Amino acid sequence: MKVDGTPYRTIWLADDGWSVEIIDQTRLPFAFVIKRLTTLEEAAHAIRSMQVRGAPLIGATAAYGICLAVRDDPSDDALDRAYDTLLATRPTAVNLRWALDAMRDRLRNRPHDERVGAAYEQASAICEDDVATCAAIGDHGLALFRDRWRAKGEQGKLEVLTHCNAGWLATVDWGTALAPIYKAHDAGIPVHVWVDETRPRNQGAALTAWELGRHGVDHTVIVDNAGGHLMRQGRVDLCIVGTDRTAANGDVCNKIGTYLKALAAFDNGVPFYVGLPHSTIDWTLGSGDDIPIEERDAEEVTAMTGTAGDGAVETVSIVAPGSPAANFAFDVTPARLVTALITERGVCAASAEGLRGLYPERAEAEAGG
Amino acid sequence: MKVDGTPYRTIWLADDGWSVEIIDQTRLPFAFVIKRLTTLEEAAHAIRSMQVRGAPLIGATAAYGICLAVRDDPSDDALDRAYDTLLATRPTAVNLRWALDAMRDRLRNRPHDERVGAAYEQASAICEDDVATCAAIGDHGLALFRDRWRAKGEQGKLEVLTHCNAGWLATVDWGTALAPIYKAHDAGIPVHVWVDETRPRNQGAALTAWELGRHGVDHTVIVDNAGGHLMRQGRVDLCIVGTDRTAANGDVCNKIGTYLKALAAFDNGVPFYVGLPHSTIDWTLGSGDDIPIEERDAEEVTAMTGTAGDGAVETVSIVAPGSPAANFAFDVTPARLVTALITERGVCAASAEGLRGLYPERAEAEAGG
Repeated sequence: MKVDGTPYRTIWLADDGWSVEIIDQTRLPFAFVIKRLTTLEEAAHAIRSMQVRGAPLIGATAAYGICLAVRDDPSDDALDRAYDTLLATRPTAVNLRWALDAMRDRLRNRPHDERVGAAYEQASAICEDDVATCAAIGDHGLALFRDRWRAKGEQGKLEVLTHCNAGWLATVDWGTALAPIYKAHDAGIPVHVWVDETRPRNQGAALTAWELGRHGVDHTVIVDNAGGHLMRQGRVDLCIVGTDRTAANGDVCNKIGTYLKALAAFDNGVPFYVGLPHSTIDWTLGSGDDIPIEERDAEEVTAMTGTAGDGAVETVSIVAPGSPAANFAFDVTPARLVTALITERGVCAASAEGLRGLYPERAEAEAGG
Repeated sequence: MKVDGTPYRTIWLADDGWSVEIIDQTRLPFAFVIKRLTTLEEAAHAIRSMQVRGAPLIGATAAYGICLAVRDDPSDDALDRAYDTLLATRPTAVNLRWALDAMRDRLRNRPHDERVGAAYEQASAICEDDVATCAAIGDHGLALFRDRWRAKGEQGKLEVLTHCNAGWLATVDWGTALAPIYKAHDAGIPVHVWVDETRPRNQGAALTAWELGRHGVDHTVIVDNAGGHLMRQGRVDLCIVGTDRTAANGDVCNKIGTYLKALAAFDNGVPFYVGLPHSTIDWTLGSGDDIPIEERDAEEVTAMTGTAGDGAVETVSIVAPGSPAANFAFDVTPARLVTALITERGVCAASAEGLRGLYPERAEAEAGG
């Protein structure tokens, strides 16, 4: 999407033809900084420190991490080490494993001198595939948005609530949950987005608000506590979120707090949609209860970063001195609370049957296996 | 309760016998600052700017605000002006009207030269009554906590989740929701409290964590998004919150986000209790849907205050520059999601019948009216 009139993706090959450039998302929304990755370690650090975040972009960055590793050393050992290093950066993200598997499968049985070229080709294909996937999620979601807009009599605004950042910054382009919003906005539907702040890392207030604002989409930032009240008051027409990992039964593992919004949507008859690429589905997981929940550094809860009066970026401690804190990164939203899943293949019920209907080859693989 | 070994209340008469001292809660948890109020305007400012907050303490401060006004001018006009000024400071707080009515009733038909003495006597009685009320809420809640602790086999910790600050800082002493926690802790039950940060004003991370820590109660600060996850994982034995205003049918108007926690508790079979003094009940309100929800300054959402590395208190902007924000202060939790109300008279169902059972004189007044 565009930033100040210039089209950007979130990851691209630099002019030198081999190093990789990303937007350092830890600097957003206060500074727009582009960062160059030249080694496996820099790629792993970019994922670990959340300079890149969002399941699809993590996968794309890991793919280019393999490219940088293979460029240094094309041996099987180096490839395996790179695979392990990158896989360990974010244990909850299933896209990471998917992208790494795709890279290793492409390279393993290939002569060493062909590996570098093949790696860059594969990483580029992963990126192009992601852009096409997100655009398709956007188109399928747009149809649902149109229905809702018509049901509302095309009056006022189409009021959408989203949590965290599942926008173009979380993918290579378009986004997952935000793709239908961009498509609806571009199609002339007057969308207004309630943007959950999304504590503790504030991806909503910082990133979703930033990218919607730069694209010209009307939006309002609210604290995570406010969505239930808005839904009770009839001020939300639909919710849409992304997912870091989707179980085969349609349970959704997404940013902590998603479950609370899904409960409120269910309690008020507000449709609750999840936008996801197929790579987020973990067919080996029978239910969301089997997903390990990452616990992150408590300092993400106790400290807050922003700009001071003089414009300098500062971090302040916001918790009573001496009080401990805990930081659970994700929660699981049971499929029963999800109105529908929106994938690149279309819209389905959040259930094993729904997902199998869209991905029959998986049903066959399971039956055959 | 105690602060560093010294017993404090949240409001008291100064040594001069007429001015009033409060703890400036906007300075907590970073500094413990005592502030002297000498005029009606200072009392109104203390309420409006949330130097004092919490329904009972707002009522007590308003009562002393009347004292300061009457001391300057004991006329009926001055009394009415003081009443109106104080009532306008926080429109959602029903205690405010209750305390102001009690003061005016006591003073109106009295000679001017007796009004100052009567006002201070009445304000003191309101404070003593609040302390007794909160202690009784604590004792009734303690019985529920004991039951839950026994049901758990007295293993591990009794895990309690609370939202916002309904502690002694929100009352004159003891607190409402936290009174049973202090009573349980003092009675030797090993309580651990999950403290919701409570955006946007962070009363949980700042005030609840501070007062629990100073009293020695084990606690952990979490973001508002985390409670649903903890309840799904069976890591919460009960929730307890306060209320700013309770409708006659048991609906509860409390800090924004309370409704989301109640939904999660209901979905997971976790008891959800509300601790409240009778003064919080608005018998004229048939349902919580009739309660006007205060919208506060958006800057409470977009800015965050804490201590920088050098210990100085600083405020930083945390939202994408240019993005608007909205700030809804309260939400309504429907009675169907509340396991029980805990008042100074005992425990009852969150329903018109439950409340009438505890306050039969109200039922009679309504039948008679």
